[in-house]
Amino acid sequence: MRITTSILKGAAPKLALAGAFIVATTAPAMAEVPGESAFIFNTLSFLMHGFLVMWMAAGFAMLEAGLVRSKNTAMQCIKNIGLYSTAGIMFYVCGYSLMYTDVSGFIGSLGGIFYGSSEAELALLDGDEAQLGAVLDNGYSVLSDWFFQMVFVAATASIVSGAVAERVKLWPFMIFVAILTGFLYPITGSWTWGGGWLAEMGFSDFAGSTIVHSVGGWAALAGCLVIGARKGKYGPDGKVNPLPGANLPLATLGTFILWLGWFGFNGGSQLAMGSAADVVSIGMIYVNTNLAAAAGVVVAMILTQIIYKKVDLTFALNGALGGLVAITAEPLAPSPGLAVIIGGIGGALVVFAVPLFDKLKIDDVVGAISVHLIAGIWGTLAVPLSNSGADFVTQIIGIVAMGAFTFVASFIVWTILKATIGVRPSEEEETDGLDKGELGLEAYPEFGRGSQTL
Amino acid sequence: MRITTSILKGAAPKLALAGAFIVATTAPAMAEVPGESAFIFNTLSFLMHGFLVMWMAAGFAMLEAGLVRSKNTAMQCIKNIGLYSTAGIMFYVCGYSLMYTDVSGFIGSLGGIFYGSSEAELALLDGDEAQLGAVLDNGYSVLSDWFFQMVFVAATASIVSGAVAERVKLWPFMIFVAILTGFLYPITGSWTWGGGWLAEMGFSDFAGSTIVHSVGGWAALAGCLVIGARKGKYGPDGKVNPLPGANLPLATLGTFILWLGWFGFNGGSQLAMGSAADVVSIGMIYVNTNLAAAAGVVVAMILTQIIYKKVDLTFALNGALGGLVAITAEPLAPSPGLAVIIGGIGGALVVFAVPLFDKLKIDDVVGAISVHLIAGIWGTLAVPLSNSGADFVTQIIGIVAMGAFTFVASFIVWTILKATIGVRPSEEEETDGLDKGELGLEAYPEFGRGSQTL
Amino acid sequence: MRITTSILKGAAPKLALAGAFIVATTAPAMAEVPGESAFIFNTLSFLMHGFLVMWMAAGFAMLEAGLVRSKNTAMQCIKNIGLYSTAGIMFYVCGYSLMYTDVSGFIGSLGGIFYGSSEAELALLDGDEAQLGAVLDNGYSVLSDWFFQMVFVAATASIVSGAVAERVKLWPFMIFVAILTGFLYPITGSWTWGGGWLAEMGFSDFAGSTIVHSVGGWAALAGCLVIGARKGKYGPDGKVNPLPGANLPLATLGTFILWLGWFGFNGGSQLAMGSAADVVSIGMIYVNTNLAAAAGVVVAMILTQIIYKKVDLTFALNGALGGLVAITAEPLAPSPGLAVIIGGIGGALVVFAVPLFDKLKIDDVVGAISVHLIAGIWGTLAVPLSNSGADFVTQIIGIVAMGAFTFVASFIVWTILKATIGVRPSEEEETDGLDKGELGLEAYPEFGRGSQTL
Repeated sequence: MRITTSILKGAAPKLALAGAFIVATTAPAMAEVPGESAFIFNTLSFLMHGFLVMWMAAGFAMLEAGLVRSKNTAMQCIKNIGLYSTAGIMFYVCGYSLMYTDVSGFIGSLGGIFYGSSEAELALLDGDEAQLGAVLDNGYSVLSDWFFQMVFVAATASIVSGAVAERVKLWPFMIFVAILTGFLYPITGSWTWGGGWLAEMGFSDFAGSTIVHSVGGWAALAGCLVIGARKGKYGPDGKVNPLPGANLPLATLGTFILWLGWFGFNGGSQLAMGSAADVVSIGMIYVNTNLAAAAGVVVAMILTQIIYKKVDLTFALNGALGGLVAITAEPLAPSPGLAVIIGGIGGALVVFAVPLFDKLKIDDVVGAISVHLIAGIWGTLAVPLSNSGADFVTQIIGIVAMGAFTFVASFIVWTILKATIGVRPSEEEETDGLDKGELGLEAYPEFGRGSQTL
Repeated sequence: MRITTSILKGAAPKLALAGAFIVATTAPAMAEVPGESAFIFNTLSFLMHGFLVMWMAAGFAMLEAGLVRSKNTAMQCIKNIGLYSTAGIMFYVCGYSLMYTDVSGFIGSLGGIFYGSSEAELALLDGDEAQLGAVLDNGYSVLSDWFFQMVFVAATASIVSGAVAERVKLWPFMIFVAILTGFLYPITGSWTWGGGWLAEMGFSDFAGSTIVHSVGGWAALAGCLVIGARKGKYGPDGKVNPLPGANLPLATLGTFILWLGWFGFNGGSQLAMGSAADVVSIGMIYVNTNLAAAAGVVVAMILTQIIYKKVDLTFALNGALGGLVAITAEPLAPSPGLAVIIGGIGGALVVFAVPLFDKLKIDDVVGAISVHLIAGIWGTLAVPLSNSGADFVTQIIGIVAMGAFTFVASFIVWTILKATIGVRPSEEEETDGLDKGELGLEAYPEFGRGSQTL
Repeated sequence: MRITTSILKGAAPKLALAGAFIVATTAPAMAEVPGESAFIFNTLSFLMHGFLVMWMAAGFAMLEAGLVRSKNTAMQCIKNIGLYSTAGIMFYVCGYSLMYTDVSGFIGSLGGIFYGSSEAELALLDGDEAQLGAVLDNGYSVLSDWFFQMVFVAATASIVSGAVAERVKLWPFMIFVAILTGFLYPITGSWTWGGGWLAEMGFSDFAGSTIVHSVGGWAALAGCLVIGARKGKYGPDGKVNPLPGANLPLATLGTFILWLGWFGFNGGSQLAMGSAADVVSIGMIYVNTNLAAAAGVVVAMILTQIIYKKVDLTFALNGALGGLVAITAEPLAPSPGLAVIIGGIGGALVVFAVPLFDKLKIDDVVGAISVHLIAGIWGTLAVPLSNSGADFVTQIIGIVAMGAFTFVASFIVWTILKATIGVRPSEEEETDGLDKGELGLEAYPEFGRGSQTL
């Protein structure tokens, strides 16, 4: 029980479900995992699942690089590696402290870089053997948890990057990312995974359908509204011009990378692997995560066949992501059959939401808002279907509270950026492509002359 | 011994080799791994190696997307993400049960979704502490095993996808995949890994040179024969027209992904990591797997230099895969030197088989039949070279039985599909490219105009 | 203590730091990891981190394939898969023995394929239960260590591949790789990780800023000098012609792959995961590795904005790599803040070194010498900033000794290759592209006609 308790004391996420697994620690003595072994298993889970989530940064980069036109492709690449880097540094400078240190108040207070038993870990690394007990008492390495939480905040920023592609300048975008990852995400995160008021109310979001994905979606929506649509996307006659992505195999690769990374995203969110019950839970999570994504693909393929008379690859890719986002709020409690349904609905929502946003002239280049915001809300609402510890009212309160804060705060930040340094390149620069204007290079200098024709 | 025994009871694979590792459980008490720790290690092996095999789906997608012409690239992408999704759902709906439940009969019978101790696991996840003993007694999580077995069936379907590329319609292909992954593969799988008659005879195929790869190859061969060659591939004068792939770096990436995934494919097939002997075995498997692939590359490079006076990149890539397929039937017992030889012969077979199939006017777009069927047969025949528990006659019986069933059944399914909904697009659609005809889009809309010139 | 001691006895790397972790083995008995469990954890670390480093081979391949012109892209692909294969086979044939067997002498002597307790492991796999004790006494599986060390030597060869791209013939390059990975790297490696004279002096290079990266850089520099610059790179008037890479998203993907792989490169170099102190160390290493890379990106972005008035994507990518190389010599001891500084300086050095090499007319196609040699030297010099067991003088001796040996030996090998079979293709072949001349194919046969215009 030491381990489970200390996880609750520490990052304190997934409160609603933790009860189910205390069982593991009451196993017969003959089978029990020794404390230090459990510590290693728990920490290994953060590290292994953490590197899978880190890999999602490459997935977002490839997905977005494949779905923009060739004249804006290099910009999408640098924005993605830049945002991942900025997210890590900002989360180190203040984000993690804001999210997890002193979460008794509304926002949390800035504290040390690391919290809890991290001093004990650093002292142990410096050779102070006496700290081993304190380190083990925490149940897992705080350093590994930092790594795992850091890659999550980067995912949030990646969502914004795709939505506002092809018409935002580099540095304003980077500044927004710094604010989002250093302050906005950690503030709403402190309400839930940080142990704040939403956690206390019983809001349940296992791996972040709302805490990561819809928060990213709200920040993206605010960006799209403030920045406006791409030149030529919406005709004066209400016509929606498709501006097709330049490299669909790259987008496919990005989707597969994200799918792989999601086993880390959801599996690692069990936050422990030091008991049989924990590792069985991770197995269940892998199964459900995969089935939800698969259902999202199949539903998107069938729906686009019915609606458009042709299957659409980009919808199939986004269908996978919609299924993944939907199962993220509760990948453990559903039966596999329910996971198929939750993921399938996630995929269907994407198919319907993308044209809806276009009708509203909200120009979301890669469909990120449909995937992460809409399917994220659905997934959060679906939690009570299988998790008796969650209720719809609290889920709605959480969705609305986190959405309202993130949307309003993001809208203000984007507006200030627009009013001061400006967020859009010149019309000419946009026509010529941001790669040339902002970076002075071309992503594919030898392939066709797409940048002049589209 | 509890763990080893229960693995035999459960998925029951790798019977021939299991004996060598019972040693692990008789280790001196001071060193023994506690039961629950061993359970976690075993389950972790399924999860970690499982996500590596899942990643192979991306490898097949990139390999094939790179080796087809640009006008058919998006189709290859959607077929790969679609088949991976379909395989997972079909394996959930009936495949896994068919393969592992009640394997006493010839075909197996449809049972519950999961088998064995899975009820105990689900009850444990629901909070029933009393089930922990039953869960631990199984030695590993059935849920994690399901995940691991599921990604294998998807690999089988991927093999077909590459061979029949560029001239098969989307939905007939998806229907074939559903039948292959839901019924055909599980039936032959029930004979071996399911513990059926071939397992009882002593047929030995550690990670699936035959059970996965040559089965996929036979299904692909049947498809190629029923569907016919691509328009323009074979001239009336016996001339073979090369129709080069549009994106070789993508194909190279796919090969590297497959190589990485193969450590999961072969390493995870040890089916346990809870003892020193098991993890040493996995180490040996990694070493042999890597050396076999490396030898396949080097041999293919040298042979193409000698035969064609120029090294050929696509043969080098397929040489790696040929080496990997060849070592898959027995990656543990050979010495590293023998692994080099087995893999090198695998690579050589690919170099000779590809032109042979072309001579027979069997149009295998990516060389999948040469890689998976031919090198798979070779690898299965090579098992007795190092594994004294295997004999050539039984190996041949297994190869022939599984091949005959899969080829005949696949031929019938393809033929029915051809006679009913049709398997080929119109000649015009094939000329224009399947991306335009079937999906209404282009994979690379801005790069060149390949779809009109080739 | 058994484990720590035996690691020192075996591969004997990271001597300087090992002392700090002996603490782990003095943990209270209630918490201690059982010996066989620790063995599994240690071995698992080699396997898991090893497959991440293997994945770096794909990263180098994609980075280089993206940064060369399309007419030389397929050559870059085959060189990368070929060098990875050759490195593995040569390290098996002689490299590993040379590096780790009998390191008492200057160069080491050729011994058996594997060393130390490997006979015990092979006997255990053959069913000899009596060997279990000897296997466990080593603390980790020698086979898994071989796998881990093998992927490191491949990384060294990859560095050369990028620098000498676009104007070296395939087979001379492959011969150089065989000599580098079979002899040169193992010789200098025997001085340090093999336990030789530099290790005894106290030279400290945790994961190989010098032992892997600057050694690769020196070999690359020798190659660039002997082979000469690409046709048209340097004008007679001192003008440096940019010859931009054909596929920047691919280069971005390669960088992300390398970043992911680096968690294996540095994390696995802890060489143990069987105690709480070890896994906490790995957590610290992940955190520092990520922050150093992130700082390299951000610094490169800011510096290129200031210097060139535009952010440069290729510098941002190389900035990440510069940060990663810099932290590699000591990813454990620095505080996260110091890791940011070390990585940031690594990124800055790349920004300044690339134009410097161009001024010297040393044509390094992908910036590999700047990244791996320059940032590698910096990282090695930075070790004493945080590791009190290291001193500047010894660090400099190590850098100079390994650099001098590798540069001189590489220069001789390249010169002999040039004088005998020749290293450069004909001018016409270089103009037309090496893909056509050496391989008889095109990497992107349908995209543009880059090979004729650049």
